[in-house]
Amino acid sequence: MVIVMSKEATEQDLEALKSAIEELGMQVHVSRGEERTIVGLIGNKRNVEGFPFTSYSGVESVVHVTHPFKLASRDFHPEPTIVDVDGVQIGGGNVVIMAGPCSVESREQLMESACAVREAGAQILRGGAFKPRTSPYAFNGLGEEGLKLLAEAREKTGLKIVTELMDLENLELVAHYTDIIQIGARNMQNFPLLRELGKIRKPVMLKRGLSATIEEWLMAAEYVLSGGNKDVILCERGIRTFETATRNTLDLNAVPVVRRLSHLPVIVDPSHGTGVAAYVPSMSKAGIAVGSDGLMIEMHPNPAKALSDGAQSLTIPQFHSLMKEIKALTQALGMRMEGLPLSV
Amino acid sequence: MVIVMSKEATEQDLEALKSAIEELGMQVHVSRGEERTIVGLIGNKRNVEGFPFTSYSGVESVVHVTHPFKLASRDFHPEPTIVDVDGVQIGGGNVVIMAGPCSVESREQLMESACAVREAGAQILRGGAFKPRTSPYAFNGLGEEGLKLLAEAREKTGLKIVTELMDLENLELVAHYTDIIQIGARNMQNFPLLRELGKIRKPVMLKRGLSATIEEWLMAAEYVLSGGNKDVILCERGIRTFETATRNTLDLNAVPVVRRLSHLPVIVDPSHGTGVAAYVPSMSKAGIAVGSDGLMIEMHPNPAKALSDGAQSLTIPQFHSLMKEIKALTQALGMRMEGLPLSV
Amino acid sequence: MVIVMSKEATEQDLEALKSAIEELGMQVHVSRGEERTIVGLIGNKRNVEGFPFTSYSGVESVVHVTHPFKLASRDFHPEPTIVDVDGVQIGGGNVVIMAGPCSVESREQLMESACAVREAGAQILRGGAFKPRTSPYAFNGLGEEGLKLLAEAREKTGLKIVTELMDLENLELVAHYTDIIQIGARNMQNFPLLRELGKIRKPVMLKRGLSATIEEWLMAAEYVLSGGNKDVILCERGIRTFETATRNTLDLNAVPVVRRLSHLPVIVDPSHGTGVAAYVPSMSKAGIAVGSDGLMIEMHPNPAKALSDGAQSLTIPQFHSLMKEIKALTQALGMRMEGLPLSV
Amino acid sequence: MVIVMSKEATEQDLEALKSAIEELGMQVHVSRGEERTIVGLIGNKRNVEGFPFTSYSGVESVVHVTHPFKLASRDFHPEPTIVDVDGVQIGGGNVVIMAGPCSVESREQLMESACAVREAGAQILRGGAFKPRTSPYAFNGLGEEGLKLLAEAREKTGLKIVTELMDLENLELVAHYTDIIQIGARNMQNFPLLRELGKIRKPVMLKRGLSATIEEWLMAAEYVLSGGNKDVILCERGIRTFETATRNTLDLNAVPVVRRLSHLPVIVDPSHGTGVAAYVPSMSKAGIAVGSDGLMIEMHPNPAKALSDGAQSLTIPQFHSLMKEIKALTQALGMRMEGLPLSV
Repeated sequence: MVIVMSKEATEQDLEALKSAIEELGMQVHVSRGEERTIVGLIGNKRNVEGFPFTSYSGVESVVHVTHPFKLASRDFHPEPTIVDVDGVQIGGGNVVIMAGPCSVESREQLMESACAVREAGAQILRGGAFKPRTSPYAFNGLGEEGLKLLAEAREKTGLKIVTELMDLENLELVAHYTDIIQIGARNMQNFPLLRELGKIRKPVMLKRGLSATIEEWLMAAEYVLSGGNKDVILCERGIRTFETATRNTLDLNAVPVVRRLSHLPVIVDPSHGTGVAAYVPSMSKAGIAVGSDGLMIEMHPNPAKALSDGAQSLTIPQFHSLMKEIKALTQALGMRMEGLPLSV
Repeated sequence: MVIVMSKEATEQDLEALKSAIEELGMQVHVSRGEERTIVGLIGNKRNVEGFPFTSYSGVESVVHVTHPFKLASRDFHPEPTIVDVDGVQIGGGNVVIMAGPCSVESREQLMESACAVREAGAQILRGGAFKPRTSPYAFNGLGEEGLKLLAEAREKTGLKIVTELMDLENLELVAHYTDIIQIGARNMQNFPLLRELGKIRKPVMLKRGLSATIEEWLMAAEYVLSGGNKDVILCERGIRTFETATRNTLDLNAVPVVRRLSHLPVIVDPSHGTGVAAYVPSMSKAGIAVGSDGLMIEMHPNPAKALSDGAQSLTIPQFHSLMKEIKALTQALGMRMEGLPLSV
Repeated sequence: MVIVMSKEATEQDLEALKSAIEELGMQVHVSRGEERTIVGLIGNKRNVEGFPFTSYSGVESVVHVTHPFKLASRDFHPEPTIVDVDGVQIGGGNVVIMAGPCSVESREQLMESACAVREAGAQILRGGAFKPRTSPYAFNGLGEEGLKLLAEAREKTGLKIVTELMDLENLELVAHYTDIIQIGARNMQNFPLLRELGKIRKPVMLKRGLSATIEEWLMAAEYVLSGGNKDVILCERGIRTFETATRNTLDLNAVPVVRRLSHLPVIVDPSHGTGVAAYVPSMSKAGIAVGSDGLMIEMHPNPAKALSDGAQSLTIPQFHSLMKEIKALTQALGMRMEGLPLSV
Repeated sequence: MVIVMSKEATEQDLEALKSAIEELGMQVHVSRGEERTIVGLIGNKRNVEGFPFTSYSGVESVVHVTHPFKLASRDFHPEPTIVDVDGVQIGGGNVVIMAGPCSVESREQLMESACAVREAGAQILRGGAFKPRTSPYAFNGLGEEGLKLLAEAREKTGLKIVTELMDLENLELVAHYTDIIQIGARNMQNFPLLRELGKIRKPVMLKRGLSATIEEWLMAAEYVLSGGNKDVILCERGIRTFETATRNTLDLNAVPVVRRLSHLPVIVDPSHGTGVAAYVPSMSKAGIAVGSDGLMIEMHPNPAKALSDGAQSLTIPQFHSLMKEIKALTQALGMRMEGLPLSV
């Protein structure tokens, strides 16, 4: 951390600041430039987390030179984390495809989806049982009934299951049924929830918040990791920008940035990222080529009858056709795409 | 709602769409233009909430012509809502000032703050007992001990109390102690929490999310209102933009927009809105002049020792000086600023 | 400037970097922390403008600790600049109102506007003769004919004139007729144009670009100042954000930020800032209360017949009513609003 | 176009609006819903371009149901445009790579770059002779000398040339030397410049503005097309968002959106899009996989000595290695990458 003194700062200002820093158990390193004096802090950064240096007289600004996350950082964990989901590896060069309907709507709808996902060679079935909706009047999921159907589909197909958890109340319930707990964009900074997720032993897929910087996203992961749960998967699902031609702006740049800063695997969700089914195939291919660890894709047997997010869902034939392209791409890029074991 | 057909749409496409709409209990109104055919839907919009029209063949886009909120809308409630907080009116032309430290840190710190807030003529004391922090390693509040100190300060000064609730677990506890429950920006779309807030009888102050549109903010209010709790206060606290000279971009434009669309009172928070104490006085005055129902301001007896948000906190003398300017402004604008009753 | 070395940087990396810096005529100051080594550069920053330090092995990032502008900075010019427009002072506590139609459309329209502006007590008449339009098919101004009408209106009313210049071709022509040359948001980084504006002796009002940071805006002013023209006025006119309820997001936070960083006067344009006439009065009042040096407001004798921007134009009675409120506010805030001399 | 009446609109309001619309030569189609009456306009939309309908009493909002561009639209030109650059085809499934240094710095630097570009199998050499710089004190290009060196490199290698034009003054000069005229992000809405580009017969590559919507970008292309120049190439180079981990946010979503709306070819620039050399290879591969017509990549013989944008420039070996990957990818995706003729 570097503190920049204003042009008008006096020697007394500097001395007062130095005392305050030393009281916090840090060392001080002063550097006098032509226009500004800067003060470097040396020592354990956590000592000064959130300390209000700019309230000190003569202080112009505070500049952070390292990232605030530790456990999520590649600095202290250079090897990529591989999350093992009951035999399916996420991270480490294996491309994983998660697909299925936005919401679990009925046994028929889910089983048809699951079979199609399995047949196409994907490894994980997605489906929402608890749905966050911007309108209080919209369909918000089947609840436990949906979880049971997901478990039934896993039984039938051998696919692993990922589904969203929205609140602490249902943590135990959701963890009981699912293989991966998905935390949605709106809950990325639900800190009480993140703390509890750190205490369980179940992989957590953490979606990036609509306006979360990559640093904030990794800090949210840090909450889970610092609780002791090492199985965190990141998921880029689009950020909010001024552009309205797409529902969100899928930020593929986040993939190489995360790779550089962190060891955690990262998945791309082109369905929420664009909000338009017609854009999903091209953004899926880009999501693979950019080097992510896999995709999460919405697919529905009949999008025109979907109870949520039909506009961004692929049909089953569209999904199958896309999977063929993805496989060719994966090969050309020298990546693996390990399927499920044959015997279910 | 208006559906725009693509240039290539056929008569069969149109017929299929019309059937689907009629099945939903709506009437159809077709308008054939030179470039596009558009289809108007007439009837109760809730019937078609989230229906995937763009999945139908020949549909280019869906255009919403009304807002999705009802109870929060001025259309159905033309008179402004006045929230009565145990005698202090929020809304209806009375300017309310909420002030105090970011976090409750100690009895001494809080009592000194409360006395200064009371003396300056403000009506409501703010102070966090549960703090959302981006870092898992940062101070996160005194919890119930903080709530008790707030209640003690109310007892002593007659000020009303506002404090943040972060999760369902603590709803009953926080509601027991506070006069207004504050919901932070990160929880603006915590739907399970909003649903429960609709069931209690305690004013709720709902901060705008960092990247929430005004429409989404009013939809969040709709969640609370639709549960039966009519005492919702909105709070603009800055949005996230590309500009980094301020912590957030306080969006004062939101005040006249909310006034036009809704009957709910709206408060401005220049402390979080800018993140810099030096900018708080001018943005406070702008927040009054723009016609809001009041301000929420961070003030600390010693910002340089604050455990959170010291950089954006005014000192006690700065706050007193600002209050004098605010009073002059309020008068010049023909607004009221009713203080607390003299006898406590 | 501070250079942060990566955790993996070697001593050779550090030595190579130090040599490069010293070759540029700067001194080096190395500070070894627990996690990172940082390298401070001491000397004239212009020597290293744009130098690709991150291309050096072992360099993680470059952190700027001072702003890149000099002539626009308060550091080297602590007193506020007052731009004298033929007797009307902009800056230094005098509130200036610029008003008039978006485009000059006809003699009748302009004279009616000018008389109304004069009568209401404003000092400057605005009106576009050259109009930037997003559509090549839209009305783009009367050109020189419009400039002549503006000069005629000045003759008749004594008002000063501000009008937009769009390209180098018309610089001489526009400078001949107008008192202040307005540079629109889209031209804020038209560097060849800015360079030429530095060579003339005529006040320049520089609008902030739609997505320009405050630092970039001040760098654009630096272009003009560095050419020798000291009469630069800044104008905040709204930035582009995710919010669509307003045409732009008028960023009033920019006013105190500019005050802190620069000595240049700053004007607020609530008409382009919001794009909606109904929001102009409240944002105008906020624009005064925040401490700007004045406003630029669109007003039209008949907005429903305006050839451009009718939706954001006030009518003459609305403008007169707003001016009364602005005067009361200016007084309450202890600011001046010096009108034009009585004799014209 | 659809006009939405407010709830309070009267029959007289409706009649007045209808008259105004009919006077503009359009037909009116009224649709009365439960909450709102909406008015459809039928006829040539250009008649009502910019007409201030919201200034009419009882009008709540105006909703556009078609895009404002015509010549750039796929509606009226379903076949993709292929721009022929002296034998190199841009568009229509041929992948084109433009590469070279940010600025032309010397004969030696440019010739070394050109040979490396040619050898790697790219078709077009980039290099700036006129450079837009945010600082008035930074290197701004060699001017005509740079253009001459580019022409010499073309002579020597057979590569085609693309270079930036910044102002009308140099249009003739730049057009004389280059094969493609590049218009930078900051000039995307320099309307006088766009108008003149419509009058010449030379391909124009139009970069997307930092905060330009895709619709505005296509409207800028419309300016050039409407002047008669049909050879417009679009270039996505990153937009400005809240994220600061990358210099800009390369918006690959724009590629499928442009494909759907327009027939014009679109190129991706990962160098400016990310601003960090380490992210360029992965974003280049994503830019190909998403289905663009090619890439523009910055490469420098010695980035650590580059006079501009060294931080985002690949070295020659990095570029060669990336080209190999791109070729494999192109093949896997079923696209072509036609090189230059063998004989130069």
